[in-house]
Amino acid sequence: MQDDDLTASGLHPLLVARWSPTAFDPVHEVDPAQVELLVEAARWAPSAGNSQPWAFIVGRRGDDTHRGLVRHLARSSGRWAPSASVLVANLAHRYVEGTDWEYSEFALYDLGQAVAHMTVQAQSLGLFVRQFRAFDRDAVTADFDVPSHWEVTTMSAIGRVPADLHAPASPALTVPRERRALGDLLWPSAAPPRAV
Amino acid sequence: MQDDDLTASGLHPLLVARWSPTAFDPVHEVDPAQVELLVEAARWAPSAGNSQPWAFIVGRRGDDTHRGLVRHLARSSGRWAPSASVLVANLAHRYVEGTDWEYSEFALYDLGQAVAHMTVQAQSLGLFVRQFRAFDRDAVTADFDVPSHWEVTTMSAIGRVPADLHAPASPALTVPRERRALGDLLWPSAAPPRAV
Repeated sequence: MQDDDLTASGLHPLLVARWSPTAFDPVHEVDPAQVELLVEAARWAPSAGNSQPWAFIVGRRGDDTHRGLVRHLARSSGRWAPSASVLVANLAHRYVEGTDWEYSEFALYDLGQAVAHMTVQAQSLGLFVRQFRAFDRDAVTADFDVPSHWEVTTMSAIGRVPADLHAPASPALTVPRERRALGDLLWPSAAPPRAV
Repeated sequence: MQDDDLTASGLHPLLVARWSPTAFDPVHEVDPAQVELLVEAARWAPSAGNSQPWAFIVGRRGDDTHRGLVRHLARSSGRWAPSASVLVANLAHRYVEGTDWEYSEFALYDLGQAVAHMTVQAQSLGLFVRQFRAFDRDAVTADFDVPSHWEVTTMSAIGRVPADLHAPASPALTVPRERRALGDLLWPSAAPPRAV
């Protein structure tokens, strides 16, 4: 299935429309109630044994947290991420405090889920999300007093996309979304669903 | 925010309605086109560098794959998961083949995202998902010829919920959804969004 065919596929519109821009409207502001909804979406994600191994450092453009996160972007992400209305550092609860025992075998898996739920909520608010790792993890950890049993795993840039960049219709979308073929995702030794 | 207040919160209805049942309609069947959409939703999830570190073993109740997965459920999940219309084993691409190098630092995180996208798609089809780890990982790995650089991380049970169990309205929902307070998810040293 090609990207163009997705809209007709029956895939939910929020999933069809989702992509990860590297250009955000540098003026648009997300209001605090919407920011709260983004965190709320993550909050209600499922997790192993309801362990909820996540926390978020949330900055709105113009506040100290946003400035603090921008300071530690890598050169690559520093070119585009500061224009996002919201920057979020996504934290995983990796260890039981004071030990080297994993807090949960699924801490990263569940954080990924929570960020996905936040992304779906963002889409429903007309916002786009790009997750990235191009930042100084140690510096964010130090600046925000993140203890060693937590990990600043990824960051999300969240904001509105300039109108001329909207995917998937736009020819201005310079990075087409590509994925492995559907059949490649189904384990070869398992009967494919079509074959039943 | 309590569970009851979620519907009024502005949270997207698919996220509000989502929960993880342990009772499925044992007669309902998911048709193959819907199963394909579930995988398609996962397929279009984002991942670090578009690494797509996921694969799925998908069984529909009545087929050999479903039977093969049921055989390796733990005693706990064996009481409820077989009634799900679809069972999916969620696989993470952990290592570069033939090495002990991580394939991606974010393999588990991204698999979690892909499963979350599948869950959102399921919700939009009127289906519910419960993820679980209560199965014999080694046995699934062996039976489905999963090579050592892949990991059978979790399973998902997917199906329709008997009408009298629908959440969140139902008093029959025996396990209320509970989460840490919103404020607890915002890293203490970061300015909360409300305070800006």
